[in-house]
Amino acid sequence: MYRDRFSDKIKQYISEDEWIVAETEYNPRNNLMYETNFALASGMMGNRATHPEGFIRKELPANYVHGVFDRSEAFQRDLCNTPNWNLLKIYYKTEPIGPEAGQEIQDYIRILDLQHGFVATHYINVAYDGRKTLIESIKILSRTSPECGRFRYYITPLNYSGQLEFENIIDATVTNFMDFPRFRVKHLNTRQIGPLEDTGIFVQSETRDFLLPLTTVADVKATDSTGKDIIGSRQYRGHGEQAVEFFDAYVTENETISVDKFAAVVSGRDGGNTKVIAVEKLRSFMMRSLDQEIEMQKKIYASYWERAKIKIEGDPRLQLAVRFDLFHLMSTPNPKDNRTNIGAKLIHGEEYGGHAFWDTELFILPFFSLTFPEIAKNLVEYRYLLLDGARRNALKRGQIGARYPWESADTGDEECPDWTIEGDGTCYVCTVADQEVHVTADIIYGGLQYFLWTGDMEYYENNLLEMLAETARFWNSRIEYNKEKDYFEITGITGPDEWHEDVSNNAYTNYMARWNMLTAVKHLRKYYTEKTEKCKELFRKLSLNEAELEEIEKNANKIYIPISEGLIEQFEGYFNLIDHEIHEWDENNMPLLPKALKGIKRDKTTILKQADVVMLMFLFDEEFDENTKRKNFDYYERRTLHRSSLSPSIYCLMGLRVGESERAYDYLCRSAFVDIDNNQGNTREGIHAASAGGTWQALVFGYAGLKIKNDQLHFTPRIPEKWTKLSFSLFWKGDLIHIEISKDQVKIFSNKKELSYFVNDKEFKAEMVKK
Amino acid sequence: MYRDRFSDKIKQYISEDEWIVAETEYNPRNNLMYETNFALASGMMGNRATHPEGFIRKELPANYVHGVFDRSEAFQRDLCNTPNWNLLKIYYKTEPIGPEAGQEIQDYIRILDLQHGFVATHYINVAYDGRKTLIESIKILSRTSPECGRFRYYITPLNYSGQLEFENIIDATVTNFMDFPRFRVKHLNTRQIGPLEDTGIFVQSETRDFLLPLTTVADVKATDSTGKDIIGSRQYRGHGEQAVEFFDAYVTENETISVDKFAAVVSGRDGGNTKVIAVEKLRSFMMRSLDQEIEMQKKIYASYWERAKIKIEGDPRLQLAVRFDLFHLMSTPNPKDNRTNIGAKLIHGEEYGGHAFWDTELFILPFFSLTFPEIAKNLVEYRYLLLDGARRNALKRGQIGARYPWESADTGDEECPDWTIEGDGTCYVCTVADQEVHVTADIIYGGLQYFLWTGDMEYYENNLLEMLAETARFWNSRIEYNKEKDYFEITGITGPDEWHEDVSNNAYTNYMARWNMLTAVKHLRKYYTEKTEKCKELFRKLSLNEAELEEIEKNANKIYIPISEGLIEQFEGYFNLIDHEIHEWDENNMPLLPKALKGIKRDKTTILKQADVVMLMFLFDEEFDENTKRKNFDYYERRTLHRSSLSPSIYCLMGLRVGESERAYDYLCRSAFVDIDNNQGNTREGIHAASAGGTWQALVFGYAGLKIKNDQLHFTPRIPEKWTKLSFSLFWKGDLIHIEISKDQVKIFSNKKELSYFVNDKEFKAEMVKK
Repeated sequence: MYRDRFSDKIKQYISEDEWIVAETEYNPRNNLMYETNFALASGMMGNRATHPEGFIRKELPANYVHGVFDRSEAFQRDLCNTPNWNLLKIYYKTEPIGPEAGQEIQDYIRILDLQHGFVATHYINVAYDGRKTLIESIKILSRTSPECGRFRYYITPLNYSGQLEFENIIDATVTNFMDFPRFRVKHLNTRQIGPLEDTGIFVQSETRDFLLPLTTVADVKATDSTGKDIIGSRQYRGHGEQAVEFFDAYVTENETISVDKFAAVVSGRDGGNTKVIAVEKLRSFMMRSLDQEIEMQKKIYASYWERAKIKIEGDPRLQLAVRFDLFHLMSTPNPKDNRTNIGAKLIHGEEYGGHAFWDTELFILPFFSLTFPEIAKNLVEYRYLLLDGARRNALKRGQIGARYPWESADTGDEECPDWTIEGDGTCYVCTVADQEVHVTADIIYGGLQYFLWTGDMEYYENNLLEMLAETARFWNSRIEYNKEKDYFEITGITGPDEWHEDVSNNAYTNYMARWNMLTAVKHLRKYYTEKTEKCKELFRKLSLNEAELEEIEKNANKIYIPISEGLIEQFEGYFNLIDHEIHEWDENNMPLLPKALKGIKRDKTTILKQADVVMLMFLFDEEFDENTKRKNFDYYERRTLHRSSLSPSIYCLMGLRVGESERAYDYLCRSAFVDIDNNQGNTREGIHAASAGGTWQALVFGYAGLKIKNDQLHFTPRIPEKWTKLSFSLFWKGDLIHIEISKDQVKIFSNKKELSYFVNDKEFKAEMVKK
Repeated sequence: MYRDRFSDKIKQYISEDEWIVAETEYNPRNNLMYETNFALASGMMGNRATHPEGFIRKELPANYVHGVFDRSEAFQRDLCNTPNWNLLKIYYKTEPIGPEAGQEIQDYIRILDLQHGFVATHYINVAYDGRKTLIESIKILSRTSPECGRFRYYITPLNYSGQLEFENIIDATVTNFMDFPRFRVKHLNTRQIGPLEDTGIFVQSETRDFLLPLTTVADVKATDSTGKDIIGSRQYRGHGEQAVEFFDAYVTENETISVDKFAAVVSGRDGGNTKVIAVEKLRSFMMRSLDQEIEMQKKIYASYWERAKIKIEGDPRLQLAVRFDLFHLMSTPNPKDNRTNIGAKLIHGEEYGGHAFWDTELFILPFFSLTFPEIAKNLVEYRYLLLDGARRNALKRGQIGARYPWESADTGDEECPDWTIEGDGTCYVCTVADQEVHVTADIIYGGLQYFLWTGDMEYYENNLLEMLAETARFWNSRIEYNKEKDYFEITGITGPDEWHEDVSNNAYTNYMARWNMLTAVKHLRKYYTEKTEKCKELFRKLSLNEAELEEIEKNANKIYIPISEGLIEQFEGYFNLIDHEIHEWDENNMPLLPKALKGIKRDKTTILKQADVVMLMFLFDEEFDENTKRKNFDYYERRTLHRSSLSPSIYCLMGLRVGESERAYDYLCRSAFVDIDNNQGNTREGIHAASAGGTWQALVFGYAGLKIKNDQLHFTPRIPEKWTKLSFSLFWKGDLIHIEISKDQVKIFSNKKELSYFVNDKEFKAEMVKK
């Protein structure tokens, strides 16, 4: 057991190994990856797992707060790196103690406890003079007080006694892109630093563009084994943009002291005096003992896992990876905030500026809709709240209605720049914002799915219908009439596969546009019929009428969809590109570019970055026959390099549907292990949120084969040979039901006896939930 | 030859090994020592030898500017650490290149060229991906433009081509005592940072207490081997207190690029708009090529060595150490500034806050008086300019006249605090400022010696006489009449040996006080006789008259000097202390505390920290007979642990005088190698200035046995067996004369034929200097 490597003080809190992701030796080269993988999120903020002892040669300390964005010299509004409170330096005389300090590190282990939501560390630091110090620590971002985080050191001098010195630091010198000198940007100005009344320190910052205030406060406690306060010489120091509280403590050989750091971070997003609020939060947070905090943390995570539990019997490593994915996924969003979304890298890294992409609706949202519907509601409401941004975005590009941005931060404006600087300093004209228009339909697709799963009429009536109308209008203004061919087409766009930009009639996009328009017409008409008065109100608000719906419907039906003989052409002319199938795979079973295509520009070839047509077939499963799915899967799989982490889960899902179970399993693993194994090599930049959500979908929609048809649960289980059972929970009609799938049966446990469900189209009745 | 380790580009500049101090392998544990030993000084500022590539785990970067002091939370006015311009980071993608970056460092060597005054570095950085980069650099603090410093990198990618990225940084986050968290203090507030017009960056700071402004500016150039500008993507970035200029450059395998950084630092001490002046200095500095700069540097150092040259034939290691000592000593003071002095650690480290102690007058000044009299003049005028501070200091302690502070910065007030915090946080009541009163007489002794060597009448008339009068007055108000014994005594004081504090009638102090008083009376009377009108003017200014002189004289002659039977008691009661002689020495031949005294408080024993009575005998050689000297040397040497670096040189000098030549040589080495071997273990804190000056005195006054008697040069050579010759230059009556001493003769080469000198009291005539 990993926990046996820790002293009893920490061991008592740690779960069984099946809940533990462990870093079992210290290698500075892995730091940035573990900073991401062991980052914690409180719902309000995310804090990377840098070592709080400091003196690490290369690290990316970060504390992100949902909704705190700033642009300044960046190309887009970045989720700001706020002052680093995760710092408490330890010295013996002038010698620091930490993982990279002194002569050697022994017996290192760091673990993330997925069941309870904390990180614990253990190692022995050997100083140049032979002093050995055992450092253990445990860190929590409080789910109870999501503005707050804390960590405790247990420090034991193993072969000496003496005085240790400490620095409790809030470091406001941090930037975004700290190790990318070309892109490094400081998003917060430091307004004031200082001591708090009595004890502790503060830093008041503000974003540079909108002057959004943010206060970070921190304080410390230190006690000996009897609980006696041992802090000596406590003194405040202001060092430029670092607020520092110095203190010392006498330590005795083989006796353990504990040093606690507490911090609170409050932004001005909710109004009020951020410093006053932060101090209040901090002071009440500090009242709780570590035991109490962990107790509360355990309870909250127990309730989370009650919903998110997914058990795979037969592949423990996959089981752990899935838990890891879901842990980060469910830890990230703010349950109380519908003005923020989920970044493509969660709140665990800086890449993509913390922006929401289509990843939210098509990859992440289903997990939340089915397990945390109240969070899913925030996510879909976020899009409604930014509908005006989408309207501005449409107007800016010469269209009407609502055109959602490819990248969305806090204002709803397009954050994806029209040009950027590449790593080598050259200017890169970036057409994505202009061309990757499918995002608007993706968002509608996700919103409608959310409604279908949850039956949230309030959202449907107050938000979704308006979004449907406005997005249908957008598409109607975006499609182009081709007189010669007498159809509507969409030219100058990019589909999900980003290696083929500026194409015409991307099947995925055209299909989605048509679907979006027709779905809007269908729902608006239905609503008009069912709730005429309310619908009229909406029509008045939007200056909408049946004539416009008719035009939308008529035009939608004339949108060209490039399908011939069962093979869907990804876009017009794709089949004329240089074509070579993939025949080689690397040691991780990842496809390699066919040798014949080396040196040829990607967009001249049929090789894809990620699922495109296959994605379309996944979303509209019912609308394509078996043969078409099989044909297209085979064709495109042989041409897809999966250079986007959004690709494997979709290929897993479609692989299962077409009966390619072995390949599907490879894709499942690829998706599930993306960060735990750093298999895209960029985990340092954050957690691959879409992969995590896609993994969940692969299990639930793929291996369990769950679907809703006619408002009923249908299963088509595809349990692999090596598994004995797959079980999970989800919300259905307001009831948390539990599903257990073994090779020969599907059982549902529910509070409602009358619940019936279908397995391979045969009806069953739920069992009463075991109390 | 060390220079053979460098490429031709740098090799061409490097001197023969006899001028080279080399660091031949990279060990991070030695960094702080080499930062001091390889620090450069321009006369205006000092810059420690941190590696400008950055990413060093532990370092103490510092740039000190003479006269820029600040107190803030410190216990004294510290010489401020000003923004660090010695930084130019190099990246390949996100990977930094530097001594501690990447996988490995190969072929490392760094040298200090004592002849020409520059530092050069060479190493190969091996990145984690196997990329090898040869980095060579050469750094100069300009003697021609002493506000300016520059360094050049030669960068050669040995096995790759690609784009390097750079950050030209001025880092204003620096503090004093960076690695002492308990004492760390930020002395400068950052007022503004920004880009310069066209190219370059600036930081405007000010001291926190007196708001003295200081501007640091920097710019870069980069060229390929043809001299073509290769800077790309140059962009300014403001990161809090760091001004950063980003740029990139393409490098080709095995082709060398050069990257130059230039900086200028201007304080408000000389008035004017510091930013405007700094930019002017920078721009004109940048006009000079590296060749031109080195040419000028060589010329200036050649002229310095012409005066400071001292050649020891027969001990090359000692020769190098002496050169090293003199290089740092002569590089430090500002030749144009009589408002600054020389810190006890030169301008090479932060210990003692850059303050002047008695070290200046008794250890350092003789070297300057005899080789750089114009600098010596600044040093003695500094004390005159701060005479008002000394008057305040006397009044503060209830005395009159002028009482010089134990530690002197820019105001002349006492900088040695009455209490401080110890390393362990306890309060330490520090009696030194109150009790170590001998400093006032030491300063007068040094000033008079300066006058005797140089014959500087202007100083004598305008400065020294007034100082003599005021210090005599101070002593007259400080000495205490003992009615019972009918003599004056001085109680509650500390002599040079700081291990015995709060004693009475310290022989050294009483002797010096009497000397100071009587010397004042003698000189003032003589001056009254010779220049009555001018002297009357002085008397009027000071409200002084003959009656007061008479009283001073009378009292001085009644000061008790505790000498009995040839053995001088260090202070009253010293002979009653617990007494054990030293019988053991450590592996460095340093005396060890007698075992019998372990655990006994130091001040209860006769064991000394440093020369005290022996120092007195050194200063007043003529006033003690051979027997007394011998007796006291023997007695005290067996009781001195030399825990002050001021001690060995004095024991060397007195050892020679009493005929203990072997022990004297050990002391000489101890003094000469103190920093080059880090033999006190604290070289990280700066160069031991008094040791350097003491070493020079040991050679010139000890081994050459130089003295002035009746305004004539007298030599008593004591050339050790292993030397064949000792030669050096010095100023005598405005003439730079050259002295060569071999075992059997002393030769002087002079421009003045008529110069006669005495060797062992026999008269000789100088030879005409060889043209």
